[in-house]
Amino acid sequence: MFVSDCLSVSETGHLTIGGRDTIELAASFGTPLYVMDEEQIRSACRRYKASIDENYGGRGLVTYASKAFSCKEMCRIIADEGMGLDVVSGGELHTALSAGFPAGRIFFHGNNKTPEELAFALRENVGRIVVDNIYELELLSQMAKGTGKTAAISFRIKPGVDAHTHDFVKTGSIDSKFGLALETGEAFDAVKMALSLDNIRLIGVHCHIGSQIFDIDPFELSAEVMLGFMARVKDELGYEIGELNLGGGFGIKYIPEHDPVEYERYMKTVSATVRKVCAEKGLKMPFIVIEPGRSIAGPAGVTLYKVGGIKEIPGVRTYVSVDGGMADNPRYILYEAEYDMLIANKAARPKTQAVTVAGRCCESGDLIGENVMLQDVSVGDTLAVLATGAYNYSMSSNYNRLPKPAVVMVSGGEAKIVVKRETYEDVVRNDL
Amino acid sequence: MFVSDCLSVSETGHLTIGGRDTIELAASFGTPLYVMDEEQIRSACRRYKASIDENYGGRGLVTYASKAFSCKEMCRIIADEGMGLDVVSGGELHTALSAGFPAGRIFFHGNNKTPEELAFALRENVGRIVVDNIYELELLSQMAKGTGKTAAISFRIKPGVDAHTHDFVKTGSIDSKFGLALETGEAFDAVKMALSLDNIRLIGVHCHIGSQIFDIDPFELSAEVMLGFMARVKDELGYEIGELNLGGGFGIKYIPEHDPVEYERYMKTVSATVRKVCAEKGLKMPFIVIEPGRSIAGPAGVTLYKVGGIKEIPGVRTYVSVDGGMADNPRYILYEAEYDMLIANKAARPKTQAVTVAGRCCESGDLIGENVMLQDVSVGDTLAVLATGAYNYSMSSNYNRLPKPAVVMVSGGEAKIVVKRETYEDVVRNDL
Repeated sequence: MFVSDCLSVSETGHLTIGGRDTIELAASFGTPLYVMDEEQIRSACRRYKASIDENYGGRGLVTYASKAFSCKEMCRIIADEGMGLDVVSGGELHTALSAGFPAGRIFFHGNNKTPEELAFALRENVGRIVVDNIYELELLSQMAKGTGKTAAISFRIKPGVDAHTHDFVKTGSIDSKFGLALETGEAFDAVKMALSLDNIRLIGVHCHIGSQIFDIDPFELSAEVMLGFMARVKDELGYEIGELNLGGGFGIKYIPEHDPVEYERYMKTVSATVRKVCAEKGLKMPFIVIEPGRSIAGPAGVTLYKVGGIKEIPGVRTYVSVDGGMADNPRYILYEAEYDMLIANKAARPKTQAVTVAGRCCESGDLIGENVMLQDVSVGDTLAVLATGAYNYSMSSNYNRLPKPAVVMVSGGEAKIVVKRETYEDVVRNDL
Repeated sequence: MFVSDCLSVSETGHLTIGGRDTIELAASFGTPLYVMDEEQIRSACRRYKASIDENYGGRGLVTYASKAFSCKEMCRIIADEGMGLDVVSGGELHTALSAGFPAGRIFFHGNNKTPEELAFALRENVGRIVVDNIYELELLSQMAKGTGKTAAISFRIKPGVDAHTHDFVKTGSIDSKFGLALETGEAFDAVKMALSLDNIRLIGVHCHIGSQIFDIDPFELSAEVMLGFMARVKDELGYEIGELNLGGGFGIKYIPEHDPVEYERYMKTVSATVRKVCAEKGLKMPFIVIEPGRSIAGPAGVTLYKVGGIKEIPGVRTYVSVDGGMADNPRYILYEAEYDMLIANKAARPKTQAVTVAGRCCESGDLIGENVMLQDVSVGDTLAVLATGAYNYSMSSNYNRLPKPAVVMVSGGEAKIVVKRETYEDVVRNDL
């Protein structure tokens, strides 16, 4: 019935998440409010992990891409599931470490890590620094030498695969700010250089071909390309790269029409390709890393808003204003991202009207959705926007000096705050 | 030479702002760094104020739209200039009040003010609540009655004028989430209702036709439309509305090709229209309010970044990565907004190469500019992006858990921090 398994409707006709009444949550914690379901998060983690066990005999690691949704509690859950964690900045690394996440299972990504961040990662002995470019390799090598450490690295490589997705989220093709190109020999040269450097230990190669991908083909193709590269390195340099990181990008169901591939089918299909190509090329099966982010956090979240003014413009459209908007969910103004939504206190009723849901920011483009079907809506209703667990809290701003909403985690029937709501004092705290 | 008057080049060939060497500022305060020039801010304020004096005999108020850039110090400067202040949220109101801004000169805007915010505004006796819709009028009237106060209001009205600007920033036409429509009689009904309510004192009408507008015509047209409405109210309801708020939207020069109207010419032309229409319609000259935001803060700011990896992709393009990006300047990914930029430590040299400036966020769309001409660029250079004083800090996020940069104000040769740089601890401060 809903885009996420954790959602249902109570006997009173209210939307529930993880068995908790969203109207009660809104009353207890205020709006706008992000609510996440822990069970949904853990279940997604376990499906990925089971697939690694089944298809790779357990020789692999699921690393959660924390840019999708990072906070201490999320890091604790991922640690508890025995998974790895991707971080893309010192801030994400600090979050993970302050939640007690084991540094050895952290992968540090990014196209432009600062020297301070590389020093931080080296000091904390993160499991893998995913090196993006030659300049970073040289810098890291010098810094590692200076501290007497050896940096365990992977290389980010552009497999040149176009995942047929939104322009803004296409990252595997050669025209990208991320990674080393195969076609030009840049990736091969980087491997050669890494093998010649004393304080660098080359462990793996990594690719990431895009976001919100619904097809398996591009994943198979990029696996093939990457294994081809590993075979070339083995043949020409006599070095067998032991780890293949296939990245993330697995699409989720934002609206009922979306039809993402089930993780299990993706994992099975890609692993068959990996096995086949390894056999053909005479490679040992590499240790496999995958990096789901959105598909773990996204379906687990909803955002609750209070409906304010409703503006019917005859012959034009009806605007329904809510008490949040682009500050807590910038994905509509950024990408015209579609969401499924409903009136949470009228969840059992049919949707009868098409409306535009407007945010409260002083900006005309601040909308959450256009031509969205909703139940008959009144002032004071609670609007639930579904599948907002990824890239909503993480991309939120204080535009218009709006304090960021709280994040509440529902788990085993209990609801607890995992990120406190910002206060007005928080907003001016750094003002002098 | 530059898009803003406060910028120049030192003898050492460095970009300066307010006479201060940007390379020294970057060294002292770190990067990314927002730098604002106080003189430029005050000079823009004074040009607007002088125009009010000249064209309206001083019967008017320039109110700064703080959503463009709000912090305590900015509110202090605006207060010191004797101006009014627009706020669009409790957070902006709190910022203003905690900076000691006089409440009576504050205008509270917004399409969906919450009951808590209306109570806050009433409690603090803000000068004007700019009422957006009938629901808000009813709510405000009840709340004012409950506290024994009288709310001084303006109405936000859609004059139906299309300012021929970017879709996302077009707000005066009937299809807008903001304000009351004229065509449908909604605005007239709202005025009738306001006049019948005991705890509401209707002082003015307000319109805002868009953002970053380069023509005077739409401003003249909207003034005519608004005065026509005031005349109708006078004729049919016998009530003369004493205040006309013409909003903001004045364009600025982001790139050399931009050719904004000088404020003085805008003020003169529009005032002539106002006088002419008042005479024709038998109206007294109203008290005039204008609301510049971008044109006060925008040209006063630059953002300084450190250049990291440079990626030349033969036959494709060259990516220059900097240590900030969409988290501190989301206007490129949002609107493909164009900026003028240069290598601050090579400011006197000619621009010789076209590059793509990439941010450091883990997102392919995280760019600051494409096909931008720059001086010959090397790792470690300082990139200055110009005219970033408006809608950069104010729209900044913690995406990728990046701490927000500091804001430094340059004034009389001195540079002082006005918003402290966020730390990693700030980023996790509300995490439980």
